[in-house]
Amino acid sequence: MAEANTVLIGRKPAMNYVLACITLFHSGAKEVTVKARGKAISHAIDVVEVVRRRFLPDVKIKTINIGTDKVVPQAETDGQTNVSTIEITITR
Amino acid sequence: MAEANTVLIGRKPAMNYVLACITLFHSGAKEVTVKARGKAISHAIDVVEVVRRRFLPDVKIKTINIGTDKVVPQAETDGQTNVSTIEITITR
Repeated sequence: MAEANTVLIGRKPAMNYVLACITLFHSGAKEVTVKARGKAISHAIDVVEVVRRRFLPDVKIKTINIGTDKVVPQAETDGQTNVSTIEITITR
Repeated sequence: MAEANTVLIGRKPAMNYVLACITLFHSGAKEVTVKARGKAISHAIDVVEVVRRRFLPDVKIKTINIGTDKVVPQAETDGQTNVSTIEITITR
């Protein structure tokens, strides 16, 4: 169940996602993956930084991957657009 | 001169920074470091993705580092705030 320990960053306040990460670690997770797309990417970095600097100093960043997702727009525009993605895996 | 091959991402259109990266590579740079803070982080990812997917497919991501900078606000507010940073080094 690798996908179980994933926190997908959206538009809620960063502290919500920080709490989600901390809860996962406290419930026994060894690894948590933080994912975000588009403008939420900067929030993802904020979340990881707050988790490891303020709450869980023993948490280390294992991997950071960036990529591109294709998005098919709902409105009738010309074809698809691309959106950048990030996946940060942190371990303790 | 490690610092010479650095592109600092700000508020200009992403394509400006993409061009800056490509120009550095074409002028002989083996490595280019893309740096950003705060909300510009998602633009930094966009820039790197456009460079390597559209223009220079031989470019690889070498390292991605994230961190926190302390910012002393200019107005009289209560103390400092933190801002997240990212540094992406790409090579060809």
